[in-house]
Amino acid sequence: MIKNDLYLKALRGETVSRPPVWMMRQAGRYLPEFIAIREKYDFFTRCRTPELASEITVQPIRRYGMDAAILFSDILVVPQAMNIPFEMKEGLGPYLPNPIRSQKDVDQTIIPDIHEELGYVMDAIKMTKEMLNDEIPLIGFAGSPWTVFCYCVQGQGSKSFDKAKEFCFTQPIAAHQLLQKITDTTIAYLRAKVKAGVDAVQIFDSWGGMLSPVDYQEFSWKYIQQIIDALHQEAPVIAFGKGCWFALEKMSQSKVSALGVDWTVSPKTARALTNNSVTLQGNMDPSRLLSPPGEIKKLVTNMINEFGKDKYIVNLGHGILPNIPVDNAKAFIDAVKEYGA
Amino acid sequence: MIKNDLYLKALRGETVSRPPVWMMRQAGRYLPEFIAIREKYDFFTRCRTPELASEITVQPIRRYGMDAAILFSDILVVPQAMNIPFEMKEGLGPYLPNPIRSQKDVDQTIIPDIHEELGYVMDAIKMTKEMLNDEIPLIGFAGSPWTVFCYCVQGQGSKSFDKAKEFCFTQPIAAHQLLQKITDTTIAYLRAKVKAGVDAVQIFDSWGGMLSPVDYQEFSWKYIQQIIDALHQEAPVIAFGKGCWFALEKMSQSKVSALGVDWTVSPKTARALTNNSVTLQGNMDPSRLLSPPGEIKKLVTNMINEFGKDKYIVNLGHGILPNIPVDNAKAFIDAVKEYGA
Repeated sequence: MIKNDLYLKALRGETVSRPPVWMMRQAGRYLPEFIAIREKYDFFTRCRTPELASEITVQPIRRYGMDAAILFSDILVVPQAMNIPFEMKEGLGPYLPNPIRSQKDVDQTIIPDIHEELGYVMDAIKMTKEMLNDEIPLIGFAGSPWTVFCYCVQGQGSKSFDKAKEFCFTQPIAAHQLLQKITDTTIAYLRAKVKAGVDAVQIFDSWGGMLSPVDYQEFSWKYIQQIIDALHQEAPVIAFGKGCWFALEKMSQSKVSALGVDWTVSPKTARALTNNSVTLQGNMDPSRLLSPPGEIKKLVTNMINEFGKDKYIVNLGHGILPNIPVDNAKAFIDAVKEYGA
Repeated sequence: MIKNDLYLKALRGETVSRPPVWMMRQAGRYLPEFIAIREKYDFFTRCRTPELASEITVQPIRRYGMDAAILFSDILVVPQAMNIPFEMKEGLGPYLPNPIRSQKDVDQTIIPDIHEELGYVMDAIKMTKEMLNDEIPLIGFAGSPWTVFCYCVQGQGSKSFDKAKEFCFTQPIAAHQLLQKITDTTIAYLRAKVKAGVDAVQIFDSWGGMLSPVDYQEFSWKYIQQIIDALHQEAPVIAFGKGCWFALEKMSQSKVSALGVDWTVSPKTARALTNNSVTLQGNMDPSRLLSPPGEIKKLVTNMINEFGKDKYIVNLGHGILPNIPVDNAKAFIDAVKEYGA
């Protein structure tokens, strides 16, 4: 079994000596060893080559010794497998030349054979599990159907995702069909990941907070709920909705093992909104890692005290920024390891 | 006195036959008559020419008959007057070639003589008041010190405003000095606007929701509070913090006449967070104006029912988007005017 099981214990709500810690986007752009790989291989080559994806996944573990690894990949590998051909454009991010805007466009998407289209992810998982050698758990992830849908309809990143919303508000039947297709694909995808060896799965709803509470239930949570219901008996499921404070109470009543929270929710408010019933994960402002290391350590200690050491996973409130000094990231991790010592 | 005083009555919490309505950014890019002016004059020429600013201000009133006008201007005229030379770059938005990043940069900013540097705004107010002929009230506005600071330090728009935050977290003394200088300038600016004739002032904190609750109090609310304290006896003050749901309770305990709320806060939650003690303004998702007109009308009616018709100002939860059809904006305004009829 897994030697360091702090993360799994926290997901089960068990008492721990200190909370576990990892960082969203920990395998990423702030690490010199990641940048060295990025200079040689483009984005989707890194995702699609198991040797690269597994190496990138374990890089931060080697450097800092987090309590969980998260497989390097991208939420857009799912729509790519659905016949929605995303590219990654330098300086712009994800880009889809012909975004989905009609029923016909929706009809042309497919629910893929996961092993045929996304077998490279499963290979990366097996390779990573070997490299981790049962020292720590491995997390697999997917985007929420709504967040994936946002990119598919908008065609690229956006401040308001107004095209995605317009599609929902003017062509709701087609929109729900696409959301359902993404959901079905995501369930099969995460199930395959669990079979390949991941110890838990996290759903990232990066754009859920763009919706009103009523629209969030209809266009996002309904589909996340399907994923949780389908998978919770096979692996712990963590849901993270950025900006979704308004839905935390309802989310806490589902079968999730943990909920991620962003930094706009104070620990006290997060516990209150979830009736103290579920493990929480978060939530330092990623920009706060620009503070001096000594101050970072104080902020981490305060944060653990406020959330409480049990039913808690230390993390940032969103992904680590590319411009964080490596020593500052170290201060964040070290503060957790030193907690209570 | 003002003939249609629904807006002023709502600010005083008085009983009304129906709530007043206006839209953030109502003088703007969705209007063909605005686009016609934009094709002839650049951004800051429109702000600095009283004949243009006043004409743009009354355009939406002529077309739709809102219950309040808001003077066309920009939050960046304040830092421009402080010797922080913003430009408007096509496709990029506000741009500052040498952003503020040091104590020395802060020292080089000035607290301007308002009438010398911003007299053109006062002229636009007087001209607009004449055009409005006491039919409806005129709102003047300013950015919150934090939001203006974000642009001054980041130098342009940003997803995370990480440079602005880094300045706060690593050079707090210089950061607070700049925030105080912006605050002092803003107080003098809004006071001059009231003397020139505006009937109420609104403070826009567009980026307050990027901060944690603790950092929000330190870097944003503290300064908004100073503005409210300085001005509330001279004119009603409305504060709108996008994404600042976590601070609504504290904000409601200040001397504001109303608080703006965005669409992630349900009417019920907004009333609960403010202990039903203050007039609220908002909060339809601006993207919801992409729904068919019939549906917009239903959503508006529901929204009024949920907020209640008193102590309420109908508005969007943020500025109207450029791609909203004019008939959809009309449906939003008309639904309020037809309320209860």
